[in-house]
Amino acid sequence: MGKTISEKIIGEHAGKEVSAGDIVVARVDVTAVQDGTGPLAVQQLRKIKLVEAKNPDRTILFIDHAAPSPNKDLSNAHNILRQFAKDTGVILSEVGEGVCHQRLVESYVKPGDILIGADSHTCTSGALGAFSTGMGSTDVAIGIALGKTWLRVPETFKINVTGKFQKGVYAKDLILHIIGMIGADGATYKALEFSGETIRNMTMSERFTLTNMAVEAGAKTGLVESDEVTRRYLKEMGREDEFRPIKADEDAVYERIIDIDASAIEPVISAPHTVDNVKSIKDLTGTKVDQVFIGTCTNGRLDDLKIAANVLRGKQRHPDTRLIVTPASKQVYIQALEKGYIQTLVEAGAAVMAPGCGPCVGVHQGILANDEVCIATQNRNFKGRMGNPDSYIYLSSPATAAAAAIAGEIIDPREVL
Amino acid sequence: MGKTISEKIIGEHAGKEVSAGDIVVARVDVTAVQDGTGPLAVQQLRKIKLVEAKNPDRTILFIDHAAPSPNKDLSNAHNILRQFAKDTGVILSEVGEGVCHQRLVESYVKPGDILIGADSHTCTSGALGAFSTGMGSTDVAIGIALGKTWLRVPETFKINVTGKFQKGVYAKDLILHIIGMIGADGATYKALEFSGETIRNMTMSERFTLTNMAVEAGAKTGLVESDEVTRRYLKEMGREDEFRPIKADEDAVYERIIDIDASAIEPVISAPHTVDNVKSIKDLTGTKVDQVFIGTCTNGRLDDLKIAANVLRGKQRHPDTRLIVTPASKQVYIQALEKGYIQTLVEAGAAVMAPGCGPCVGVHQGILANDEVCIATQNRNFKGRMGNPDSYIYLSSPATAAAAAIAGEIIDPREVL
Repeated sequence: MGKTISEKIIGEHAGKEVSAGDIVVARVDVTAVQDGTGPLAVQQLRKIKLVEAKNPDRTILFIDHAAPSPNKDLSNAHNILRQFAKDTGVILSEVGEGVCHQRLVESYVKPGDILIGADSHTCTSGALGAFSTGMGSTDVAIGIALGKTWLRVPETFKINVTGKFQKGVYAKDLILHIIGMIGADGATYKALEFSGETIRNMTMSERFTLTNMAVEAGAKTGLVESDEVTRRYLKEMGREDEFRPIKADEDAVYERIIDIDASAIEPVISAPHTVDNVKSIKDLTGTKVDQVFIGTCTNGRLDDLKIAANVLRGKQRHPDTRLIVTPASKQVYIQALEKGYIQTLVEAGAAVMAPGCGPCVGVHQGILANDEVCIATQNRNFKGRMGNPDSYIYLSSPATAAAAAIAGEIIDPREVL
Repeated sequence: MGKTISEKIIGEHAGKEVSAGDIVVARVDVTAVQDGTGPLAVQQLRKIKLVEAKNPDRTILFIDHAAPSPNKDLSNAHNILRQFAKDTGVILSEVGEGVCHQRLVESYVKPGDILIGADSHTCTSGALGAFSTGMGSTDVAIGIALGKTWLRVPETFKINVTGKFQKGVYAKDLILHIIGMIGADGATYKALEFSGETIRNMTMSERFTLTNMAVEAGAKTGLVESDEVTRRYLKEMGREDEFRPIKADEDAVYERIIDIDASAIEPVISAPHTVDNVKSIKDLTGTKVDQVFIGTCTNGRLDDLKIAANVLRGKQRHPDTRLIVTPASKQVYIQALEKGYIQTLVEAGAAVMAPGCGPCVGVHQGILANDEVCIATQNRNFKGRMGNPDSYIYLSSPATAAAAAIAGEIIDPREVL
């Protein structure tokens, strides 16, 4: 019987053939925590007196959620991670190096890997043809210690996308459209395999945007088969030798196959306060915007900053609208500096912050005031997500966000492209 | 009887000849508040139902101390300023536009002006040959409403500096040396007139570093006569027409004249926890450094970033030392982008933040953990200044700070220049 990508990767790591529904113990290749979840994981590892991680070269502690630190308690928490890295030889990703999910795809995860990370959006790496999923701090702690985890092999939804995007429509619109269609719990514990010609024609950056948000439909992970696009990406990252082709069998068994015509999708937005509250841009135009945020593991890559820079070039943000930009990693930042995108954005009135999660997680760098509205390229708009439950978050593509920065209100990005 | 710069400017604004010790009511040209002090000023102005500022085009509300905002209370405070600007037509300087003192010298203050600002380091503008001083929120509120303030005309210390700096010694070393010599209360309520060939040969950027820190010796303000250097600076800022020569009379009466030989000064550092605890670099080498901060109204200008970039070019920050950089203004940021300094700094491992006060004021962007040590180019190292009373702040020039970022400890900057 044919296997899905998840079944293939997990089977390989469990040392036996597996099928959806099986509960197995599997090797993990890469483990990761961030500064919110990491100190808890370390606390557990200190309890069992761990002095050696199973795979120190592929265990990474990321300081990204509050980087640089906005208060002394978080600063002290950061030092728990720094000390643990020193004591065990695992890798520390410091303030300014970037968001864990972006750093993971740039430097640590390869096709066929299993990655477990103590952060919901660990599923991002799935676009490399890896099985990557978010787990709790303690689960990841065990993975760090033993190099193993237990998993129930997920059933898979195949998301088959064909057709070309209209102008002004991007991968972000596609994934918001999908989440709106299947709902925030529509794929609970499923794997989402994104496939079809539209996906094959996407850059890795676009694919990461899709897999990053798989969890917003409740999925265990999102996956894309590895191909020549993947190989080229790994080559750019200086690790072409880590490429291998990973794809589902022709006769793999899917719980559901969802066909989507990309050409029929229009720019969309998730309105407050749930990601699946997806509306056509037409239903929201005219909504006044106080803050625009472009960045995050969802849409803070070079392609995203390019789109934003192209919209904002030679223009100015609306005087009543703040514009915050956070490149997803140091590498993205440097490339965006070289391409001139950073200068274009600063000239347009952006406050460009150091690489990191920025205001997405509500701990600093752009907390909203009461009753304020933000349009953000991030992945979540839950009530209070950006640090104030009395504010309103809309999710969109970088083009739609950049267009709002100019207009001071939600407008159709096609008007300024 | 000859007049000092302060006596001349205040006399002009009081409409009569004045001398040190006189208490006068004087016109003010420019008034400024920031996001820490501004909401209190606005509260007072709302009480008297102010609907019109006396000089709306030269009344500026700066959002710089917590920009972008790290919590919802500060975000709501920011909106008090935004609403007041809308209601009265005064100027709002938004998130990402920069530190008040830098923005004031770039765009608002000219030789001969009186500026009152609700921030201690308002004295910075004195390097333009303006009388600029920090006052409480309520005093500045009155200045905003009436375009007037009351002042006791200060006595003046003339700081006469001759000789050339040794390699590795900068304006910051000079001002720290002076403060170490006269003490944190050594010039209480005095005006410090910086003069002599060394000052005449300085750039405006260097002069701003001196006047910025006058208040750290207790002074009411710091001043430099306006000259061709001032004129060229104003020309660069697009306002050469605002230049006028302001200088003290030859026979002006000074309370004290302090002669300093710049060539005898070595790199110095203010050690915790007072600015006047000034030590020779030699006495502190080997002190482990957890964080380096380069920026602020004291040393966040293009020249400063150039010095830091020159030290860090092609090198990496020490793995145990974080490096945070904050350009003082959007203009500085754009120029530093054009010159490649930002890229050099990012490549060396810096987290470059948007223009603003950064971690200097202890509200975000680099709060220290317990027992940590920071070397910073800012102007204050008081216990708790950077958000944690259980940490240690050393003040230095950008060269000394950048050198420490590479070494991971305090070293003599001359070793890496």
